[in-house]
Amino acid sequence: MVYSSKLLENAVNELARLPGIGRKTALRLALHLIRQEEANVESFSQAILKMKQEIKRCHVCHNISDTERCEICANPKRDHATVCVVQDIRDVMAIENTGQFHGAYHVLGGIISPVDGIGPEDLTIASLISRAETGDLKEIILALPTTIEGDTTNFYLSQKLKDTGILLTTISRGIPIGDDIEYADEITLGRSILNRIPFDTGNLQN
Amino acid sequence: MVYSSKLLENAVNELARLPGIGRKTALRLALHLIRQEEANVESFSQAILKMKQEIKRCHVCHNISDTERCEICANPKRDHATVCVVQDIRDVMAIENTGQFHGAYHVLGGIISPVDGIGPEDLTIASLISRAETGDLKEIILALPTTIEGDTTNFYLSQKLKDTGILLTTISRGIPIGDDIEYADEITLGRSILNRIPFDTGNLQN
Repeated sequence: MVYSSKLLENAVNELARLPGIGRKTALRLALHLIRQEEANVESFSQAILKMKQEIKRCHVCHNISDTERCEICANPKRDHATVCVVQDIRDVMAIENTGQFHGAYHVLGGIISPVDGIGPEDLTIASLISRAETGDLKEIILALPTTIEGDTTNFYLSQKLKDTGILLTTISRGIPIGDDIEYADEITLGRSILNRIPFDTGNLQN
Repeated sequence: MVYSSKLLENAVNELARLPGIGRKTALRLALHLIRQEEANVESFSQAILKMKQEIKRCHVCHNISDTERCEICANPKRDHATVCVVQDIRDVMAIENTGQFHGAYHVLGGIISPVDGIGPEDLTIASLISRAETGDLKEIILALPTTIEGDTTNFYLSQKLKDTGILLTTISRGIPIGDDIEYADEITLGRSILNRIPFDTGNLQN
């Protein structure tokens, strides 16, 4: 592609480095930004740089935060004895959105994946073990993906944590609410029968 | 969505303002940027701001440029008597990529569209008329979209330019090279028969 401007070309190159943004989309975004008011482009560029420069990771749970200790870890109303282990901060956001969990989190920053060269030392597992060893935790909920890598990480964590006496649980897997049983995949359906729970009228959805 | 950081939320808000980028994608992009080296995010943010602040429009053809006069208008090897009128700078790039055109351009910055409130005075039409009135132009090639708005703009320009004595042409429409005739839409096929051209062995593609 021939660009009539080096400035435009540089901006397109930078935008095209973002995941899922090709060069045609990058050009469209750059031309959109050129059409905006300068103040808007300034605040766009500032917001991104400021985020990168000033954002912190909570030193307790490794969630992204504006402070040394994130809002959840600093909240005295949360149950800090129950810790939900997740792969990514997006999982924290998803669980927070449900409004069903009032404990704390631990963000691993990924899962063990030998194929991608990610070992336990690349994740915040040592920090989770330290939290477990304080004796303040009662339950650790594993909320990792149901993939080989997720299972590997679950197994590794369960081995590391088995002597701490902390209750280890995992989020339930089963047929999503509202889904037809006939269309469910067989692994999920099989698991949902094996992991059946006592009927409770409090669980009725409608 | 609950964000654990105001800085992250601001960046997501800014990214989500880009066309075609929703909030989920914006979050993915922001988290990607957080994982990058600070120097990379700095150059990302600088490239965009610098582009907005320093980019110019060529005062002859209104193409985006780093200088007052764009490379094409300043190039003595180009045929400045032949001007191709396009809607957008992306059209200039597309035509330049073909390597088939050695004239100059005129970027209208849009097309006449009463529905969107775009009239001739919002485009660089007055500047095109001035170029035509210098007497230096021999041919103006209209390369606008084949839409009602494109046709309206073509008609408006032809009316404004008819007394200048400049040859007015339009790019050819027809069956794309490599396409099967049986699958062509009937309007294009009909036009390609009406606008048939003398057979010339120089036009053979293979």
